[in-house]
Amino acid sequence: MSAKPEHFLDRITELDDRTRYEFSSSGKVYVQGSRTDIQVPMREIRQSDTLTEKGNESNPAIRVYDTSGLYSDPSAHVDLRTGLPAIRAPWIDERDDTELLTGVSSEFGRQRQNDVQTAHLRFEHLHKPRRAKAGANVTQLHYARQGIITPEMEFIAIRENMSIAQMQQQQLTGKGDVTDLGFQHPGQSFGAAIPKEITPEFVRDEVARGRAIIPMNINHPEIEPMIIGRNFLTKVNANIGNSAVTSSIEEEVEKLAWSARWGADTVMDLSTGKNIHETREWIIRNSMLPIGTVPIYQALEKVGGVAEDLTWEIFRDTLIEQAEQGVDYFTIHAGVLLRYVPMTAKRVTGIVSRGGSIMAKWCLSHHKESFLYTHFEDICEIMKAYDVSFSLGDGLRPGSIADANDEAQFAELETLGELTKIAWKHDVQCMIEGPGHVPMHMIKENMDKQLEVCAEAPFYTLGPLTTDIAPGYDHITSGIGAAMIGWFGCAMLCYVTPKEHLGLPDKQDVKEGLMAYKIAAHAADLAKGHPGAQLRDNALSKARFEFRWEDQFNLGLDPDTARAYHDETLPKESGKVAHFCSMCGPKFCSMKISQEVRDFAAAQEAADGVGIVDVDAGMEQMAEEYNKTGRQLYHKV
Amino acid sequence: MSAKPEHFLDRITELDDRTRYEFSSSGKVYVQGSRTDIQVPMREIRQSDTLTEKGNESNPAIRVYDTSGLYSDPSAHVDLRTGLPAIRAPWIDERDDTELLTGVSSEFGRQRQNDVQTAHLRFEHLHKPRRAKAGANVTQLHYARQGIITPEMEFIAIRENMSIAQMQQQQLTGKGDVTDLGFQHPGQSFGAAIPKEITPEFVRDEVARGRAIIPMNINHPEIEPMIIGRNFLTKVNANIGNSAVTSSIEEEVEKLAWSARWGADTVMDLSTGKNIHETREWIIRNSMLPIGTVPIYQALEKVGGVAEDLTWEIFRDTLIEQAEQGVDYFTIHAGVLLRYVPMTAKRVTGIVSRGGSIMAKWCLSHHKESFLYTHFEDICEIMKAYDVSFSLGDGLRPGSIADANDEAQFAELETLGELTKIAWKHDVQCMIEGPGHVPMHMIKENMDKQLEVCAEAPFYTLGPLTTDIAPGYDHITSGIGAAMIGWFGCAMLCYVTPKEHLGLPDKQDVKEGLMAYKIAAHAADLAKGHPGAQLRDNALSKARFEFRWEDQFNLGLDPDTARAYHDETLPKESGKVAHFCSMCGPKFCSMKISQEVRDFAAAQEAADGVGIVDVDAGMEQMAEEYNKTGRQLYHKV
Repeated sequence: MSAKPEHFLDRITELDDRTRYEFSSSGKVYVQGSRTDIQVPMREIRQSDTLTEKGNESNPAIRVYDTSGLYSDPSAHVDLRTGLPAIRAPWIDERDDTELLTGVSSEFGRQRQNDVQTAHLRFEHLHKPRRAKAGANVTQLHYARQGIITPEMEFIAIRENMSIAQMQQQQLTGKGDVTDLGFQHPGQSFGAAIPKEITPEFVRDEVARGRAIIPMNINHPEIEPMIIGRNFLTKVNANIGNSAVTSSIEEEVEKLAWSARWGADTVMDLSTGKNIHETREWIIRNSMLPIGTVPIYQALEKVGGVAEDLTWEIFRDTLIEQAEQGVDYFTIHAGVLLRYVPMTAKRVTGIVSRGGSIMAKWCLSHHKESFLYTHFEDICEIMKAYDVSFSLGDGLRPGSIADANDEAQFAELETLGELTKIAWKHDVQCMIEGPGHVPMHMIKENMDKQLEVCAEAPFYTLGPLTTDIAPGYDHITSGIGAAMIGWFGCAMLCYVTPKEHLGLPDKQDVKEGLMAYKIAAHAADLAKGHPGAQLRDNALSKARFEFRWEDQFNLGLDPDTARAYHDETLPKESGKVAHFCSMCGPKFCSMKISQEVRDFAAAQEAADGVGIVDVDAGMEQMAEEYNKTGRQLYHKV
Repeated sequence: MSAKPEHFLDRITELDDRTRYEFSSSGKVYVQGSRTDIQVPMREIRQSDTLTEKGNESNPAIRVYDTSGLYSDPSAHVDLRTGLPAIRAPWIDERDDTELLTGVSSEFGRQRQNDVQTAHLRFEHLHKPRRAKAGANVTQLHYARQGIITPEMEFIAIRENMSIAQMQQQQLTGKGDVTDLGFQHPGQSFGAAIPKEITPEFVRDEVARGRAIIPMNINHPEIEPMIIGRNFLTKVNANIGNSAVTSSIEEEVEKLAWSARWGADTVMDLSTGKNIHETREWIIRNSMLPIGTVPIYQALEKVGGVAEDLTWEIFRDTLIEQAEQGVDYFTIHAGVLLRYVPMTAKRVTGIVSRGGSIMAKWCLSHHKESFLYTHFEDICEIMKAYDVSFSLGDGLRPGSIADANDEAQFAELETLGELTKIAWKHDVQCMIEGPGHVPMHMIKENMDKQLEVCAEAPFYTLGPLTTDIAPGYDHITSGIGAAMIGWFGCAMLCYVTPKEHLGLPDKQDVKEGLMAYKIAAHAADLAKGHPGAQLRDNALSKARFEFRWEDQFNLGLDPDTARAYHDETLPKESGKVAHFCSMCGPKFCSMKISQEVRDFAAAQEAADGVGIVDVDAGMEQMAEEYNKTGRQLYHKV
């Protein structure tokens, strides 16, 4: 949206060119499942050949998990005003356990539909809302417990299994030595149960146990299904949303697509500013990612910002309003109990969760437990009619190193464990939010305690930030903690951007935050020993070693930045085929020299059968040979 | 150097304004030791008052470890052409075990002094070189083993002990609850022996054991002494240096001062381009930080880049040349043995260390052990005559996740352990370099093995990078590994910049790399439970909670960036006294609300003696009181 037409609907037709473009040397592939309408998107990165003296050797295309949706598919027609295609619609229809309503059920939703002042901002092609038929439970957890493998589960199995499938296709064993592109170190998974191959039945089983969730509202048929659980790839969430101070609808839709491009697995719309309802509609209709919200933010806006005036009825209406728009998971701070609030009074940073502090204020003011807690089973009834998942909020998470792992935090976690079991009793999917600010040596205690008290329900943490002293760099302070807790068993990492504590993230901040968190999540997958996780590292390192610069860029998380950095010092095209890099120049290049070491050892081995480990016998001869062959530093390109 | 005069010496008079300026709300303080010429620099950050309804409460000034030298002292006169003051000169003189030479001892050094073509680049005020008197050993290790506490050791004790001293001054116990600014979580130090207070005797003892080194050449009297060891604050090294492709002397001097400003504890000059000798002189004369080099780079240049032509004589001359300029530690890849080279042939990325690959090539070509290994005791003789410390290079470190912790890497580490003991036999200080690319779950094995085979000699690691897939972001992939290995016992972290693998870092890259590594080092100190380490976190978090924005910025690692980010969304001066921030706006601010929770609980406790933990008795009354007092959301500023 570089041009800025006067009318909103003209402005929001298309995404910024900087958001919507194909990844270089990449193609979108769709892997078909057991039926033609299961089309699982992946990104395939083409590689160039390795140049050897014997001729060119081809390198396999590498498939990577792809969250970018149609926005990176040049063949797709995308019009933000009509929204994305409803790929799940047939699957939902077939189950025949839902019904289309004639209109929205929430009072507030009706008001907004009739509001004249915001008419010009309204998404034009509103869906009719869908709800479970009376008495039906339409959650993926409910189906899983009945032994049903849904198309969504099969979609997820194919998606999660991507790198194993391609290793099989390329006949990589994953067991050989490091010359096998599939080589991988055994991981340390701290009791996770990660199988060698993800099957649809495994997906069903994990969901049935509550150890994974598939956040996917029946009113969000545009979703490309994904799963959150410790035995799957570690996921990343990006927060977007406007505030009273800044941002517009088109900026938020832009940030959504931008987040997806850079690897967000889910997005939370944390808007607290103007036109929350309309902003959310635009976001959901244009999102193939699950969308999470914190409904209490909007509820508070409805009572003019006075926390004490919040009621169950207003909150309930908000849940239904948002569920019928298609929100996939709700953060609900039901664990903030009255007796826990005073535990925070002597903290360095009190209560730093917005939702937590709103509820604490309500509890203090009314001197009773919050309606989130007392109406928890009523909330479950709503959730299961739309398949909205719980993200049980950690309202008392620590906001500073000093407050980490304190009584208030762990007391709330215990309550979240109890609530998890109530949600499960209703077959409602549930994950648990976690901290916050925690020094490295206290992170594992968080994960272990969560696994224990929440019976392995997925953990979803913000960071944690491992120090307080770097405002402006909290994507890094927290990326460290995120990588560690992901390794220990956390299922999804909520990103932190460089603007944390300072301001609202813009597009560049969103990308910086996502890069730090994609790194953390992948580092966690490697450390857990997630099958096939090392394939991309191996391919990129091989490309790097062979000076296939473009392949190195393209296999990286952010080809644009890698290429730009390279070009700053060696801008010419010739730099990209150079058998050296700008750090060392041609003389000193260590990779070059060690390639020679290898070539020589291999040539020697081939020539006379002296194995490279048979040092004593072969070395003198090798030295002579090496000197005789001209001691060349350079290979011909 | 924003203006670019034609003549080099006119260009290099002063640093860029962006490098040389005072930190905001900070003052330079010098703490005097047992003699007037021991003046230990610290940065003191002033804080504003906390505004309460009872009146203003003052907040203490916080002292932080300061590596920025005179470059951040507005009262200091700095002329790059004369270099920094030689603060150590009297201490070296007094020991009366060194002599001033009439000229440089190295052949190459003499050549360069007489070279007409580089005369215009030469540092004008060359020191006469100093060397140990015949038979003398002038290393800090030698003194330490004789029970001598040098002024350098006392300087270090004061410097390292800074936060404990200020806690005592402010009567903070460090034991109380979180309302005490000195509160700190007990750490987990994996067998480190960190005392409550660093004394000069402790410094001496750690050096004597070889568990810490003080890199400090007698020809580098400009140094502000610092120490590297697992029982001290975790240190950070920044690499600078030109290459054949790019960079100039003035840029490198600028990068040196810039590195110091952003917290580098030591700097390595890795120049491989033009005028290495002259560049190094300019750097050392203007550096209060220890300078490390990799002498084999220069030696290779002297033989026209042909590794096979390197000889002991050329290398020896290079060591003396650099030792007489004042280099404080030498990276020497003496552990690359002939029999280890073939172990790298089947690696994904072979040998990625420049020094390692040069030596491997030499070994292959000559079919014998390198002169670094065979002449190791000769090297020790040179080192002890100038007090140059070893940084035993890990020439076979892994360059990819696949190659981590392999046979070649650990075989070399064993040899480095043997060499450490030889260095110690000569009373030569010694640290050990470490990897590289290592997934998270394999990092601890590196640290544990190093501690074991090198008898706790300080470990100095590059990262490690925890994944290969993020070129452009390797300050983050490696910052994760660096924080962890620092926690496990690593003494110094060699930074990695965003340009790693792609190009030479510019000033902004240097800063980005340093920020990531200062975070990693501090996170490690917190996790180890380093005494007083949490003080700065506590002070910053308290400032954040109290909306003292300027204090939050100033206490952070990078006040400029924090302030700029804040100003992007709330640019007006009023934003900096606002009792809310741009993320949530005034209504939703969680910190605001929880401040209210606290105020209310405290008021209640004071009024009727009902303790805040006596919930049942007091809550109803609290609720009434809260409602009666107007349920105010805002405090008057």
